[in-house]
Amino acid sequence: MAVERRALIHDGPGGRFEGVFAWDDAQSGARPAVLVIPNILGQKEEDNVKAEELAALGYAAFACDVYGQGKRTQRGPGASRYMDEMNADRALLRDRLAASLAALKAQPEVEESRTAAIGFCFGGKCVLDMARSGLDVLGGVSFHGVYDRPDYDTVSPIAAKLLICHGWDDPLGKPETVVALAQELTESGADWQLHAYGHAGHAFTDRSMKGSTIPGVAYEERADRRSWKAMKDFLREIFA
Amino acid sequence: MAVERRALIHDGPGGRFEGVFAWDDAQSGARPAVLVIPNILGQKEEDNVKAEELAALGYAAFACDVYGQGKRTQRGPGASRYMDEMNADRALLRDRLAASLAALKAQPEVEESRTAAIGFCFGGKCVLDMARSGLDVLGGVSFHGVYDRPDYDTVSPIAAKLLICHGWDDPLGKPETVVALAQELTESGADWQLHAYGHAGHAFTDRSMKGSTIPGVAYEERADRRSWKAMKDFLREIFA
Repeated sequence: MAVERRALIHDGPGGRFEGVFAWDDAQSGARPAVLVIPNILGQKEEDNVKAEELAALGYAAFACDVYGQGKRTQRGPGASRYMDEMNADRALLRDRLAASLAALKAQPEVEESRTAAIGFCFGGKCVLDMARSGLDVLGGVSFHGVYDRPDYDTVSPIAAKLLICHGWDDPLGKPETVVALAQELTESGADWQLHAYGHAGHAFTDRSMKGSTIPGVAYEERADRRSWKAMKDFLREIFA
Repeated sequence: MAVERRALIHDGPGGRFEGVFAWDDAQSGARPAVLVIPNILGQKEEDNVKAEELAALGYAAFACDVYGQGKRTQRGPGASRYMDEMNADRALLRDRLAASLAALKAQPEVEESRTAAIGFCFGGKCVLDMARSGLDVLGGVSFHGVYDRPDYDTVSPIAAKLLICHGWDDPLGKPETVVALAQELTESGADWQLHAYGHAGHAFTDRSMKGSTIPGVAYEERADRRSWKAMKDFLREIFA
């Protein structure tokens, strides 16, 4: 086993985008592949590491970029500047997600007909939007995502299977928001599952948020471990 | 591997109780064990089969009886007569669950300090009541359970880890009831997880309910398969 990575630069709506593609060089031929969609801060090393973990599981993975080359932020003031632009134009976000997915599918290591998407925080919203807009993935996993619907017409039935991993104490996803999402996905005919974790909040997979003092926003080891395991089972199921 | 079963008859509050104990005879020594708590109908072959499936996984299992020897019902009028008695006396139910657990722990094949409980429908409520009343299990899994709290004081913190497998369309567990359970378990300090399944209702594990025409009550293959897999992962975690 030799997990490799390379930069993946592609054009898309509004400019040029740069992410990292990871795969196991010891495997030959095309394999199922996973789009890894970053959180609020944009493309970064943590996402590349997730892509490598997926590569070690036998998938190809692309830690993608929907903000644009070089557009990344840090925690603190201004952290949400690029995310805010995307939230203000969900149709553009959808088109950028389509471009990221197309870039993944164009890689020679990727089996075009068997892809999935996972995402964290804002990236979880992106996963849901991919399913809602009918982009061609077999499934998606949202980790502490954001659940508000886009303003465009969504598809029905939603074809992608969905796993929503949710920290119950997440201030961005209060119980009524979770119930509304469940209702939306039910009405859209999606094959959906929600895994809710007690005593976990937003960002529960984010190791850089260990010991965070923001109420309801912190790394939580059990939810991180259990949700990653659930994702592995989910990917095994959809790629079977 | 040779999964065996034997009748397990024991005394308890209000009479004599009879269930079925299952274990793998090819294994030697004491092993972790699981109490299997039946649904509304009481002790029956379906529960014994679940116990055998657990035995094949390397656990000992006791498909128990909280109604009393010979007290079983069929679907249709009168199905709930013994369950109704238990729901009217939750303290008695708790004490019978304690007797069932003690009977399990008394078996020579059972490692007394490592037990769990699983239950279906009314049995899911029993699992929650075991945790709420501080009975000595490391964890519990409720499959399409019933979530109303008992009238006695419950322990805090709840020590048993809990996995709640829930069909989102279950008319016995509407969203507000699920949210209230999550709130209760959070306040009780339980390590809890909820797995909710879209397009599944009550009885989603119950093969005898295939093609049921009762709204929101039917077997659902995906939720059955996924929840059993989640249970296996959960048991592996708590018995690690």
